[in-house]
Amino acid sequence: MQLTFDGETVRGGNEARERFYDARGYGRPHDGGLELAPVEAGHLLFRGDVTTVRDDRDDSGEGIGFESLLASRAVSEVDFFVYKELRDRGFYLSPTDSADVTDFIVYPRGQGPWDDAVAYRVTTLSERATIDAGTLQAIARGIDAEEDEASTGVLAVVDEESEVTYLELDVPTLSGSTYHDIPSFEGDLLSDRVLVPEPPAALHDRAFYGQRLDRDDDRVQLSLVEAAYLSSRGDLAVGVEDVADADAIVDRGREVEGERFDRRLRVYDALRSAGIVPKTGFKFGADFRTYADVDSVDDLGHSEFLVRALPADHSFVPRDLSLDVRLAHGVRKRMLFALTVQGGIDWLSAERLTP
Amino acid sequence: MQLTFDGETVRGGNEARERFYDARGYGRPHDGGLELAPVEAGHLLFRGDVTTVRDDRDDSGEGIGFESLLASRAVSEVDFFVYKELRDRGFYLSPTDSADVTDFIVYPRGQGPWDDAVAYRVTTLSERATIDAGTLQAIARGIDAEEDEASTGVLAVVDEESEVTYLELDVPTLSGSTYHDIPSFEGDLLSDRVLVPEPPAALHDRAFYGQRLDRDDDRVQLSLVEAAYLSSRGDLAVGVEDVADADAIVDRGREVEGERFDRRLRVYDALRSAGIVPKTGFKFGADFRTYADVDSVDDLGHSEFLVRALPADHSFVPRDLSLDVRLAHGVRKRMLFALTVQGGIDWLSAERLTP
Repeated sequence: MQLTFDGETVRGGNEARERFYDARGYGRPHDGGLELAPVEAGHLLFRGDVTTVRDDRDDSGEGIGFESLLASRAVSEVDFFVYKELRDRGFYLSPTDSADVTDFIVYPRGQGPWDDAVAYRVTTLSERATIDAGTLQAIARGIDAEEDEASTGVLAVVDEESEVTYLELDVPTLSGSTYHDIPSFEGDLLSDRVLVPEPPAALHDRAFYGQRLDRDDDRVQLSLVEAAYLSSRGDLAVGVEDVADADAIVDRGREVEGERFDRRLRVYDALRSAGIVPKTGFKFGADFRTYADVDSVDDLGHSEFLVRALPADHSFVPRDLSLDVRLAHGVRKRMLFALTVQGGIDWLSAERLTP
Repeated sequence: MQLTFDGETVRGGNEARERFYDARGYGRPHDGGLELAPVEAGHLLFRGDVTTVRDDRDDSGEGIGFESLLASRAVSEVDFFVYKELRDRGFYLSPTDSADVTDFIVYPRGQGPWDDAVAYRVTTLSERATIDAGTLQAIARGIDAEEDEASTGVLAVVDEESEVTYLELDVPTLSGSTYHDIPSFEGDLLSDRVLVPEPPAALHDRAFYGQRLDRDDDRVQLSLVEAAYLSSRGDLAVGVEDVADADAIVDRGREVEGERFDRRLRVYDALRSAGIVPKTGFKFGADFRTYADVDSVDDLGHSEFLVRALPADHSFVPRDLSLDVRLAHGVRKRMLFALTVQGGIDWLSAERLTP
């Protein structure tokens, strides 16, 4: 049985179709025979199911082996290692057209290309490359996918040592139930926060704004982002001369943080509007940690998300994604990226996945 | 008992010295009386030990209270929260001259400014500020400290909610014992790694270069940084035409990573030269994880460090430091920053500290 390669597609006859497609889900049937993507042929060569593939463009008759196929760049190593890893895990999968965001369609275990169901849409990436926020969103949303929308968008990162890390990307719906009325109050704008000498009782203990100055001290300190939000709603007055209160606080925030402060404030606002309480995520290396349903600070419950506020055109380094997702997993939270776009926030969550 | 403030120093008489310095380690004696830094006076005001401080510059006779002192910017809130936190933990501490890298000298528990010993040299930082690598190195080395060299350099970061996170900074000495002779061998330069069809047995199994292609497959794949290192030592030949092997590999690395590849290669080289094996730290969001004493990959032992390679002029965001150190702690490793300087690498380690 001979397979041939024309530089784009590997082809085989009826026997190859029976043996590789019908029995094991490689390639796709074509005119009674078989068409394989180079990465699929590479896997057959790697396994020794096929020894060499004949090169249509080469008259020498010397066939292509696994190593020369990989060296030829007809197959990206990153694609090969992901393909192999998923095969090792017992999945059948099909490469897509290279223009797609999705590199592989992965079928549920026990199913294959002859079935309709899709378990994962996988995009491959080298540890050493970068990926922009828009592409991650496309993976999460599956906008280019004709297939079943119930499938999960997955980024498969191949590290320098060819280990594969899978990240499940999703567009979560955020909703909480924390809405408390607070009577308006006054505070002092310090250099890096706002001190509230006589806070309304609900401010900290129910709505979970700020922190008490000390365990036995009723005075509350607000972060600048909390203060800017409360001031923009008219709840907080800081009494700065000649400037609107909210503007004075935002100016103070920008002094140190620049546009990052504006970005964090927009994310803070969006989370509060969804009934969710954002608190600092500093100890977790994030912008915020969140609580969805706060009725009293004495009974907070577990914080669900770690949130990082980023510009919509942010370019992700896979290593940083790996760091964020691993840390969030370690503290039983989900990593949430808040991408600030014109007119709102796009949410993108990332979690470690074992297919 | 009346304390007075001239805009720089708070002063009291003999009674104040007895009550605050002799008994509780606040300030320093001067002419039989007491001199306090504003942050120390702020803490006495906060605790209610003193109600108000008289302002020498103000004839109205209205004293300065805690809130107005903090609002006046005579005391940085960041300094105040660190001072308070360390006092709450039972330490006596003294502010230093503001030109120092060190903000507070912290005495061992049970000791004070009248003793010679120093436990910690503490530098304070707001979560929202940045700090450059040079300053972190100065904290670690204590180069500006006249005091006991046995003291520990500490960065105290105050987050938006005024919680304090302590990071111990150090300049570690790195040494390992992994030196194995490898006969020279050949490999194929693929797009993102080097494939070694017939590797010497010691290459992977003893010296821990690369990975096997599969559990039962003897072929070894090397990362580009491993391959560049081995090639520069003359151990690996990849047979690229018209170019030295090592240059061809480095060029491939730079194609994707730019100067980051060179930085990583220098750090890789320095670690290997110290007898330490660097492997990818991708799953931990780092450049490398390290093994100091590898005799066989079947008996690796625990990896000690996570390493991040950075340019010497890197500016750290406290949030990123917090993220790295927390993750490393969670996997029982120490976080190590490798700062590439002219002629070598400066090592800087950071660990979470509970004083």
